[in-house]
Amino acid sequence: MKIGIVGLGLIGGCLGLDLRQAGHTVIGVSRRQSTCEAAIEKGAVEAASMSLDSLKMTEVVIVCTPINALLPTVEALAQVLPPETVITDVGSVKDAIVTTATRSWPNFVGGHPMAGKAESGIDAAELGLFEGRPYVITPLPETKPTAVDKVVDIATTLEAQIQFADPATHDKAVAWISHLPVMISASLIQACVQESDSTVKVLAQTLASSGFRDTSRVGGGNPELGVMMAQNNREALLLGLKNYRQVLDQLTQVIETEDWEHLSTLLTATQSGRVDFV
Amino acid sequence: MKIGIVGLGLIGGCLGLDLRQAGHTVIGVSRRQSTCEAAIEKGAVEAASMSLDSLKMTEVVIVCTPINALLPTVEALAQVLPPETVITDVGSVKDAIVTTATRSWPNFVGGHPMAGKAESGIDAAELGLFEGRPYVITPLPETKPTAVDKVVDIATTLEAQIQFADPATHDKAVAWISHLPVMISASLIQACVQESDSTVKVLAQTLASSGFRDTSRVGGGNPELGVMMAQNNREALLLGLKNYRQVLDQLTQVIETEDWEHLSTLLTATQSGRVDFV
Repeated sequence: MKIGIVGLGLIGGCLGLDLRQAGHTVIGVSRRQSTCEAAIEKGAVEAASMSLDSLKMTEVVIVCTPINALLPTVEALAQVLPPETVITDVGSVKDAIVTTATRSWPNFVGGHPMAGKAESGIDAAELGLFEGRPYVITPLPETKPTAVDKVVDIATTLEAQIQFADPATHDKAVAWISHLPVMISASLIQACVQESDSTVKVLAQTLASSGFRDTSRVGGGNPELGVMMAQNNREALLLGLKNYRQVLDQLTQVIETEDWEHLSTLLTATQSGRVDFV
Repeated sequence: MKIGIVGLGLIGGCLGLDLRQAGHTVIGVSRRQSTCEAAIEKGAVEAASMSLDSLKMTEVVIVCTPINALLPTVEALAQVLPPETVITDVGSVKDAIVTTATRSWPNFVGGHPMAGKAESGIDAAELGLFEGRPYVITPLPETKPTAVDKVVDIATTLEAQIQFADPATHDKAVAWISHLPVMISASLIQACVQESDSTVKVLAQTLASSGFRDTSRVGGGNPELGVMMAQNNREALLLGLKNYRQVLDQLTQVIETEDWEHLSTLLTATQSGRVDFV
């Protein structure tokens, strides 16, 4: 298959490496000439340029830009591609993307390969990043099965675990397990930072250990990514925050009223409930 | 020095191993004969029995029982020890313990060596657990410097990082970095478990990855430990929860009003603020 990749960062680069190793022809597009050269050098693409015109002959184009650039990229591709080309994306939210993108391009199929690493950019690309990891495909009822099949082929090549979900279900699920954790973790850090008694704060900084480190990790991550999550998955995230706050208030009340039996029941439920998630 | 250890679990066992290796004589006491035998076998103690009377000739007794048994153990020791013996503990909260224990035993010095591992019990004991880890010592204004010195000697032998704090400051600091994380992490799990749309919940369970795993880790831990934290450090924890909720509400409002610039400022502050804690 001849495949186009727009956006040659970590995800685009990793896709290119895997797809080329499987025998596909991969053409890249980046906003920067230096990235095009790095991607060719790395072996992630056969050829790369700054022009979407170079993708005219591809069967599938995978849009791997930052999430805020996804829709403008699909719009731009719609001006140059023949209508039979399938466009898919790798964005971490789907509802806002898929409906609009499908309107611009009926052969659009939403996708979300869920893999990553701490480093970003083409230099961090490696083979096998998606192996064994979830790849969520989010077709609409009107999406053509032949278009979906192309994305299934790609995910199968990557040896990813394919999951189907409607876009809204996907967004609610990732709000729970990815976006909400960022916000509650960031709030923990912020609450600690705001401690007004400097003796307490300095001691807390000295004593913080693995418990604090793990709980605060995602809240101390890339702020731009956090803002993009909130912008693009706002409703599902707000619903998650609302439900979370209710649980937190209930737990606080249990501690306030010293209802230790209830607290024990609650913490026993969370201990066993977590097992289904990790 | 002749040192007594009451409670031969992970912490008591690790203390025994290190103190014996440094040339001290260590006598253990446990509620169970089988634990006494295991501790002797392990080399954590020279001798062990179920009777506190065996500690009459020691200079320092370290109480390593679960936190709810600390004060009763100090009371019982007060009936058998000569008044010059120093009693110290390893409890993870200090205010409620230190004031009462000092009333029963003026030569009491609060301590909190902050180290642990996933496994518990004497079988998990190992050399060097406290090396480089914080050891908080929490004397009251009236605590005799000679008594404090004995605990400093022990912490120095363990090659731990000694920190001095008054008991209330210690409790507020550990509420921030240890007890509050447990409660906000447990609330995350509970909120996810309560998702009523089973399709969303099952997808969330399937997609949950390192972000959810880390943020939920301490909330999925030992429920008894969580209850003991809340029981024994209730006031500091409630204050932490109150401040945390204010921050969470502010962050939620920022997302509700789509004030992305403010969210970016907030997440940039948490990214840099975390660095001082980890």
